[in-house]
Amino acid sequence: MNQTLGSFLEDKRSMLNQQMEQQIYSMQIPETLRESIMYSIEAGGKRIRPVLLLAANEAFGGEENRAIAPACAVEMVHTYSLIHDDLPAMDDDDVRRGKPTNHVQFDEATAILAGDGLLTAAFHVVTSNDHLSDREKVFLTRELSKASGAEGMVAGQMLDMEAEGQTLTLEGLEAIHRHKTGELIRFSAVAGAFIGGANPSQLHHIETYSKYIGLLFQVQDDILDVVGEEGEIGKPVGSDVSNNKSTYPQLLGLEGAIEHKNQYAERARMALKEAGVESTLLEDLIDFISDRKN
Amino acid sequence: MNQTLGSFLEDKRSMLNQQMEQQIYSMQIPETLRESIMYSIEAGGKRIRPVLLLAANEAFGGEENRAIAPACAVEMVHTYSLIHDDLPAMDDDDVRRGKPTNHVQFDEATAILAGDGLLTAAFHVVTSNDHLSDREKVFLTRELSKASGAEGMVAGQMLDMEAEGQTLTLEGLEAIHRHKTGELIRFSAVAGAFIGGANPSQLHHIETYSKYIGLLFQVQDDILDVVGEEGEIGKPVGSDVSNNKSTYPQLLGLEGAIEHKNQYAERARMALKEAGVESTLLEDLIDFISDRKN
Repeated sequence: MNQTLGSFLEDKRSMLNQQMEQQIYSMQIPETLRESIMYSIEAGGKRIRPVLLLAANEAFGGEENRAIAPACAVEMVHTYSLIHDDLPAMDDDDVRRGKPTNHVQFDEATAILAGDGLLTAAFHVVTSNDHLSDREKVFLTRELSKASGAEGMVAGQMLDMEAEGQTLTLEGLEAIHRHKTGELIRFSAVAGAFIGGANPSQLHHIETYSKYIGLLFQVQDDILDVVGEEGEIGKPVGSDVSNNKSTYPQLLGLEGAIEHKNQYAERARMALKEAGVESTLLEDLIDFISDRKN
Repeated sequence: MNQTLGSFLEDKRSMLNQQMEQQIYSMQIPETLRESIMYSIEAGGKRIRPVLLLAANEAFGGEENRAIAPACAVEMVHTYSLIHDDLPAMDDDDVRRGKPTNHVQFDEATAILAGDGLLTAAFHVVTSNDHLSDREKVFLTRELSKASGAEGMVAGQMLDMEAEGQTLTLEGLEAIHRHKTGELIRFSAVAGAFIGGANPSQLHHIETYSKYIGLLFQVQDDILDVVGEEGEIGKPVGSDVSNNKSTYPQLLGLEGAIEHKNQYAERARMALKEAGVESTLLEDLIDFISDRKN
């Protein structure tokens, strides 16, 4: 990994963690509910979405302090989605990132409410921020609600559950990923570029870039489930197979999946070129996501 | 009930139902998820919150078409909260308004996602509306997210669950209600008055009015649980007692609860007078909520 991206990731992660903590502690939340929310926020993770948002903003010359609120918001939405997806009625996962999932550490009711609270807080964080114009706040709220709701991420989780135990076509598999993980990644890139000052044509190409980033992210997830190390990926290797989930390696073979991944990376690179923006960060993010080990 | 309010309620309910249906059908939602969302929207209910919002807007001379989107949004948030509150891990209710609850009719996972989708859609409905300025959309999103989130309604549900089996003081009981039902009712009145053009002092008095409307609503709920007819209230009479919930009648006796209710109604009337607005609708709403049978 390029040193520039490496230190950017590290710096921004710790900045984002601080900012999210500050936002949550600035709210008057019942004690246990706050603990449950902070537990999942502090569980960490790669912070890919907010870092992508910050990098896209920076690529277009935007000031960082204007991108922090939406970056925190998208990570809060992502965190809520993990809490709800892990619930017994959903994917029924007990462990995430090597730690007990929220409903195991607390209880189901608290986990449901922590997710509800985080989702709602995301919209408050965006609209109560001082560095954004009303026009920008409306754009961000509208796009984030579309990307994360019943047309976007929530649709993806629904389609994913309905597909369990079924063999999907590649098209069907991509439709799930486009919704379930793709939409928030798309939002992140577009939101960052928008705040940074990208013009409509640039926004369009950044959207294409983010589409392939999202697919890249998912195919690598599937590959790691086959070839990864349990200690690194934070969940048992092969859990997709045992959960009867359709994956890229299952549909295309491991070689085919890797080939597919490389094609996605190439298309992301092309879209970035067409956006006409020089950004080592956005370029290096392609390799980072493509080569990540967890 | 006054005829004016009666026909207002009836007209607005059917208008709101149509509008919400239209909004949900304008979104691309997976079939089963849409059915689940529509099932709970169509389960009906009194539509008190959106009607209060419309009435407050009208009281200040606002155009109705500017209040419809936030009115739908608050009812969507209310509906999501009912779906999640009914879940087995939460209040574990099988029946609402005489019909199977969402997770009984569908399944738990679908109910969780339907709630998530409705909550998220509320913010999209507000920010994608053509009749509101960006400033108004930001105000509405900020206030709705605060009222419904971990500082507001979600906090109320958390406090309510934590209080189960405990004997509360009147103060503790009111803190729960202020969050759990009060915040969305407050939002409704303030949002309607704001869109209608109320000045800051009027907004303040409308907020006070809504605070007592909220408490009035809750004390009558508790009274109905003691003296209501099962067929009318849509759930078994006495279910608060069997669920070990603290109630006004339990803390104050039935007579005391009724007396308390009348005091709240009086204070709501005073606040309305101080707002300096002539509104038969808002006045009649006090009696309607106070005297309702379900």
